[in-house]
Amino acid sequence: MLSKNTLKFIKSLQLKKFRKQEQSFFVEGAKNVTELLQSDFEVTHLLCTKKFVEENHHLLPKVGGSFYEVSQQELESLGTFQSNDTALAVAKTKSNETFELGSNEWVIALDDVRDPGNLGTIIRIADWYGIRKILISKESADIYNPKVLHASMGSFTRIQFFITDLANFFSKGNYPVYGAFLEGKNIYEVEFGSGGIILMGNESNGISPEVGKFVSQKITIPRFGQAESLNVAIATSIICDNVKRQEHIFSKSKK
Amino acid sequence: MLSKNTLKFIKSLQLKKFRKQEQSFFVEGAKNVTELLQSDFEVTHLLCTKKFVEENHHLLPKVGGSFYEVSQQELESLGTFQSNDTALAVAKTKSNETFELGSNEWVIALDDVRDPGNLGTIIRIADWYGIRKILISKESADIYNPKVLHASMGSFTRIQFFITDLANFFSKGNYPVYGAFLEGKNIYEVEFGSGGIILMGNESNGISPEVGKFVSQKITIPRFGQAESLNVAIATSIICDNVKRQEHIFSKSKK
Repeated sequence: MLSKNTLKFIKSLQLKKFRKQEQSFFVEGAKNVTELLQSDFEVTHLLCTKKFVEENHHLLPKVGGSFYEVSQQELESLGTFQSNDTALAVAKTKSNETFELGSNEWVIALDDVRDPGNLGTIIRIADWYGIRKILISKESADIYNPKVLHASMGSFTRIQFFITDLANFFSKGNYPVYGAFLEGKNIYEVEFGSGGIILMGNESNGISPEVGKFVSQKITIPRFGQAESLNVAIATSIICDNVKRQEHIFSKSKK
Repeated sequence: MLSKNTLKFIKSLQLKKFRKQEQSFFVEGAKNVTELLQSDFEVTHLLCTKKFVEENHHLLPKVGGSFYEVSQQELESLGTFQSNDTALAVAKTKSNETFELGSNEWVIALDDVRDPGNLGTIIRIADWYGIRKILISKESADIYNPKVLHASMGSFTRIQFFITDLANFFSKGNYPVYGAFLEGKNIYEVEFGSGGIILMGNESNGISPEVGKFVSQKITIPRFGQAESLNVAIATSIICDNVKRQEHIFSKSKK
């Protein structure tokens, strides 16, 4: 039986302040909850309907904490989904380890990406293209925001996040940084090296001047029509695709 | 002065039923309204704040119908934006002309894309890549839905839309149709011809079997990591980029 205190605790995690204080967050819906249960996150609470139990009983032993079978109404009153007939799980947030850029590794860095939907979509794109680390400026959306986790479609479980002051971070290393600008080199003609950092900027203002000065190569997606700009998640996907495409073509030509 | 009837009329356009009946729609926000005023759409009403008038007085002569200076509160009560300190405009919908695939022309076709945000984003991508026509199945989101228009960021003014029964449409022509599937040919290795139709499917179910049988080449975005799928707007952008990239490289190699 769910106590009033547990209900209050879970509901409080809709706010960043309490997520930080409790070092906990929640995810909703079958896709995200099953991915969470298959990851190395420490799950402290699982609330789910009978339907979810029937379909996912093999995953239930992974719940380290408390397990509750609840009604759809109870789930909806706790989470942010308009309809949720499956599950909600609470897990402990993870603290960052030290960032290291592996050899031949590609990483994404986000300078002030504010929209939770964009951040979540970028996490999903990173996971599609096999990118395992994302550097995120402190002003960006909170990775544990329910909207971010929802848009990531479970991919957040496979990505390491490093929340940092990007200018300070870049000043201490010597990384190949490919920054997306409107007036950079055409990505079709850029020779991407064997690894580096793909830097994307804010939805309205792009990459800030403080962070921009660490960019080693300004890059641009060529435009063939008249739209003024592309959404930041769309732009990220196109750049990742060009980087990986070049690797693919290069590795084939060596064979 | 805005009459009660005008207010009621504009508010009714939030619903597809009334947009169809009145053959009218509205757009909100500075970006979309200024793009609308610069297009060949017939604008019947412009409601805007003093600020918008000051910044865009050169566009006001383009309003064929009624012009009203209103408060931010009035704008917000009529539209769907939480905050709108600029403008809202009503225009007449356009009826489709007959579709024709030009030589060397690329067109997008959408089989049951339901999410208005996805449809709007795809319109913006088409406009970026110089694609001027989109074929849309009848089950897809309504192109005049305020959320679609908002996400398109003004690009809807530059695209021709053809709402049609796609299976029936394809059965009557002989088009090169490149359909996005999870088990098609790697887009990095597809030789896109000099024009054709890029077909994208529903968010959950992909391309329907009835429409899929008209696909001449199944294509797939290669996956390097573990995400199960990509959002349909993201996938559209990556495919458009690969098509245009090939054209670009080809035209350079001919020089």
